[in-house]
Amino acid sequence: MLDFDYSISTKVFFGKNRVGEIGEEIKKYSDRVLFAYGGASIKNSGLYAVIINLLNKNKITYEELSGIQPNPRIKSVREGVNLCRANKLRFILAVGGGSVIDCSKAIAAGIYYNADPWDFFAKKARVEKALPLGTVLTLAATGSEMNGFSVISNEETKEKLAMGNDLLRPKFSVLDPAYTFTVSKKHTAAGVVDIYTHILEQYFCPVQGAYVQDKLAEGLIKVCLKYGHLAVKEPWNYEVRANLMWAGSLALNGILTYGKIGDWAAHVIEHALSAVYDITHGVGLAIIGPNWMEYVLDEKTAGKFAEYAKNVWGIESKDDFDAAKKAIAKTREFFRSLGMPVSLREVGIGDEKIEEMAKKAVVFGDIGNFRKLNTSDVVKILRSAL
Amino acid sequence: MLDFDYSISTKVFFGKNRVGEIGEEIKKYSDRVLFAYGGASIKNSGLYAVIINLLNKNKITYEELSGIQPNPRIKSVREGVNLCRANKLRFILAVGGGSVIDCSKAIAAGIYYNADPWDFFAKKARVEKALPLGTVLTLAATGSEMNGFSVISNEETKEKLAMGNDLLRPKFSVLDPAYTFTVSKKHTAAGVVDIYTHILEQYFCPVQGAYVQDKLAEGLIKVCLKYGHLAVKEPWNYEVRANLMWAGSLALNGILTYGKIGDWAAHVIEHALSAVYDITHGVGLAIIGPNWMEYVLDEKTAGKFAEYAKNVWGIESKDDFDAAKKAIAKTREFFRSLGMPVSLREVGIGDEKIEEMAKKAVVFGDIGNFRKLNTSDVVKILRSAL
Repeated sequence: MLDFDYSISTKVFFGKNRVGEIGEEIKKYSDRVLFAYGGASIKNSGLYAVIINLLNKNKITYEELSGIQPNPRIKSVREGVNLCRANKLRFILAVGGGSVIDCSKAIAAGIYYNADPWDFFAKKARVEKALPLGTVLTLAATGSEMNGFSVISNEETKEKLAMGNDLLRPKFSVLDPAYTFTVSKKHTAAGVVDIYTHILEQYFCPVQGAYVQDKLAEGLIKVCLKYGHLAVKEPWNYEVRANLMWAGSLALNGILTYGKIGDWAAHVIEHALSAVYDITHGVGLAIIGPNWMEYVLDEKTAGKFAEYAKNVWGIESKDDFDAAKKAIAKTREFFRSLGMPVSLREVGIGDEKIEEMAKKAVVFGDIGNFRKLNTSDVVKILRSAL
Repeated sequence: MLDFDYSISTKVFFGKNRVGEIGEEIKKYSDRVLFAYGGASIKNSGLYAVIINLLNKNKITYEELSGIQPNPRIKSVREGVNLCRANKLRFILAVGGGSVIDCSKAIAAGIYYNADPWDFFAKKARVEKALPLGTVLTLAATGSEMNGFSVISNEETKEKLAMGNDLLRPKFSVLDPAYTFTVSKKHTAAGVVDIYTHILEQYFCPVQGAYVQDKLAEGLIKVCLKYGHLAVKEPWNYEVRANLMWAGSLALNGILTYGKIGDWAAHVIEHALSAVYDITHGVGLAIIGPNWMEYVLDEKTAGKFAEYAKNVWGIESKDDFDAAKKAIAKTREFFRSLGMPVSLREVGIGDEKIEEMAKKAVVFGDIGNFRKLNTSDVVKILRSAL
């Protein structure tokens, strides 16, 4: 186990109708707020009206930033920074899924930076200060509601890049599983794949002896396996939605990584894929994840895959490679059974831009820690995903 | 799953030689400190000298409160409160195991209360304000380093009572597994039993559908099973000590209880036992825990015990009672194999004071949530533990 600094400062209000409590929480920081959200879904569900009423009742001045898209764009970040500056807003309330929250984090950092906020993602600048933000979560997937990560897309450069800083952890997050009842089958399934892959990215790691973390990771994978199909079949089942929502937050709030190092190559490759083709992140992960696993399976990694096979899938074999291959096949089959595509061709993508995507994936150098990957490795993984 | 408020604010510095960082952390709060510890062990290990050097180097004024005993006494709390008041100390540094930390929490609350701090434990007063405190942990057991609980003994009234408040969560805790290398076999084993029982107290709960929490709990139990014996056999093994130390903190920092309610009857009964006989807490739990399990096994609870049997011990049976009994026997056998006594007679206790202990256990009313227990139930459990 590696040394680590544990600090997870986000307060979580979990349960039904907890949103009513955010007025008091926001006012601890400011009464001038940027209210950030995506599009029609929170208006259709009535959540938009609830938030507006709460803000008014608490005499909180606000400006709205709407239209934040999936794979959120840097232009929304710039727009949010300008809104905050022009209106002296000092708190951001993000209502939505990971895209809205990630965009809000970039705005929170951008307001204190006197150049283009894309610099944070291009690794030209580091976050030194940020506005406080809070979230009301409407999708179980990214874990952004409890961590300091942000992933933003740049349409001009066709890049999708990540940054992370503990200053960007939300001050509070409302996790009301009922808000996810109306999430479509496709996005519910994509969320499950996202959560599952977050766990794998931290489980598969070269650090030895982090048994606590591995047991927690295996436990959270079992939550995905138990409730993944149920969420697609019974979208209005509170227990199902509650367990997936809480698992999604724990999967990426740091608890699985402290004492280890994550791999994250599958995520970086998927970011390159969705930067070029603008597909849903979880869909991209269902395609890339199992192919990444097959590619990095070798003499050094087979033992860890065999652990995964045994402890998650109950597959035992004297031959680690045999166990590993069966477990990878099971993983792909699970994603497929959720209704996810598991190859590029299924989403209409051929081999035309594989080199371009591979170059984007390694823009900052080789990727991955479980096994280091260069451009040529990424090309092979993408080809295997066709 | 029940609604919950998640807030775990303690920062953890985990790893070798992290103690060097506490000077800066303490000075965020005050440069006038109460340095609380037990006895000779931190002097023998050299940790005492390290702390004194750090305090001096950081120009931190301090007073020492030493001699805090296992099953820490209210008289130490009163002494600490007086020291803080007389010397205007505004931060408490607790260096030791759960006893030192629990005592420090009671002092932290007591300084702002104008009557006897025992009132907090006798439920005559509530903590409204507390001094900030930090810890350097030297024993993997109670989890006090990351939560707001405190358990204090009163020699005059022969009571041992608990209180809890989020204001008492340490601001930071240094978790250096190397500090536990020199812990005796007995106290290492008692610590493992304490961690294991904390997990069980939260696992066995009448709330349904908290699957995330159950999977995390089963994972942490497996950490105890994997490393419990190893810690006794290989006290200088860093991986072993590190996993147990981190498991101990996670077992009682709230993550297993959020969304559920704990049972805690076994703990309350053990507190009555050690209030009267002053035995080591983990030893008391090794005796009480399995007897409590046998007693509360009934039609309503058998299903949960069968889950425990299957997921922790790999015991499957068509008959839940059969599985449950086997799993309870396995649990007792595990404690015994660590060198722990599993009956009262083994520690020289007969049936003379069973009624007295039972009355103490239910001083605030019936105990337990998995199954409610009254005085007569507790008498039966204690008799079965003879």
